[in-house]
Amino acid sequence: MVDTTGSPGAAEPPARGHSRGSAREHILATATALIAARGMDAVTMADVAAACAIAPSALEHQYPSKEDLLTAVLARRDEVTERKHGTADAPGRRILTEIVRHAEDNAGVRNIVQAFAMIVARGTDDTHPAHDYFQVRYVAVHEQWVRTFLDLKEAGELRDGVDPAVAARQTTALMDGLQIQWLYDERVDMAADLRCFFDSLLLRPLEG
Amino acid sequence: MVDTTGSPGAAEPPARGHSRGSAREHILATATALIAARGMDAVTMADVAAACAIAPSALEHQYPSKEDLLTAVLARRDEVTERKHGTADAPGRRILTEIVRHAEDNAGVRNIVQAFAMIVARGTDDTHPAHDYFQVRYVAVHEQWVRTFLDLKEAGELRDGVDPAVAARQTTALMDGLQIQWLYDERVDMAADLRCFFDSLLLRPLEG
Repeated sequence: MVDTTGSPGAAEPPARGHSRGSAREHILATATALIAARGMDAVTMADVAAACAIAPSALEHQYPSKEDLLTAVLARRDEVTERKHGTADAPGRRILTEIVRHAEDNAGVRNIVQAFAMIVARGTDDTHPAHDYFQVRYVAVHEQWVRTFLDLKEAGELRDGVDPAVAARQTTALMDGLQIQWLYDERVDMAADLRCFFDSLLLRPLEG
Repeated sequence: MVDTTGSPGAAEPPARGHSRGSAREHILATATALIAARGMDAVTMADVAAACAIAPSALEHQYPSKEDLLTAVLARRDEVTERKHGTADAPGRRILTEIVRHAEDNAGVRNIVQAFAMIVARGTDDTHPAHDYFQVRYVAVHEQWVRTFLDLKEAGELRDGVDPAVAARQTTALMDGLQIQWLYDERVDMAADLRCFFDSLLLRPLEG
């Protein structure tokens, strides 16, 4: 989120005089809560506008379609996750632990995980509003993972033969794929399987 | 496909007097070819009926909705893949090699891979026509992989600490997840990354 309120580090939106940035945050936080509670398909643009106490036309001005809104909801979730888990600049082993925690968190927000799975799949069609966001996101996530595994390799933490670029793609694939399996069967423990994978790359198993 | 023609091992449908089984096979093979050529969203029920030279009502009698037809197309694809690669009863290392080949094949049928990704995601909603098929399929695929990795473990082929059930879920997750990455960026080599994963489980790298 681009904070345009002029108060650096402000955790809450201003009580009055919504800036563009905080209005956007309000819409996306509200839409996220509605989707988490009811599921993506059960939430309409009108529901979101009503819950935000804004006119449907004002919502449509920012998000012309529900797919645009859903894409923005998922993009915001990526930002929130990165802030919460500090994955942008933590050292290697810490990032792996935080991502395992993120997988644990996901098991508590089924409707959001399902929305992600559905929109990621739809976005593979290059005419879909989510296409460009996810195409750029997969490149960025890949580069982040490559850097993490390169750092771990330089620190002598990885087993012989682990290729940082391959491990990067495998990590993202595992996270996406385990979510699908979990959506079909909630006994799948996404965090445990991800931790096992990281441990198979590391010389010393992950903490925690 | 349940062959009801009474000629065991017949590779082609009978030239006349379509049985129920061969009529079904004709519809699904035709729909598969149309989807492969044009993409899932560009193919209508009317297109499939016309290409099969049957009335739309006859198609709808068998597949009440396009989602039902798409589910059946993907189910048939699973059967075809299993027959082609003989994954039902090949020994462990052979199955891994064949699955790597299958991942190579997938890179040649983008529209089918995309249809799979989209319908698998939609099917996570338990009201979707594909839900029950994929729920059962994921259990069956998991059991097959567990058996494969247990066999490999007993044969002394696996590295210490590889858990067959975890490896089974990871394999399926990797295949599903790599497909998503490849749909966003065709430079991703699904087969190579899958092979690397298998090699990380095995004491001796895969053949071929």
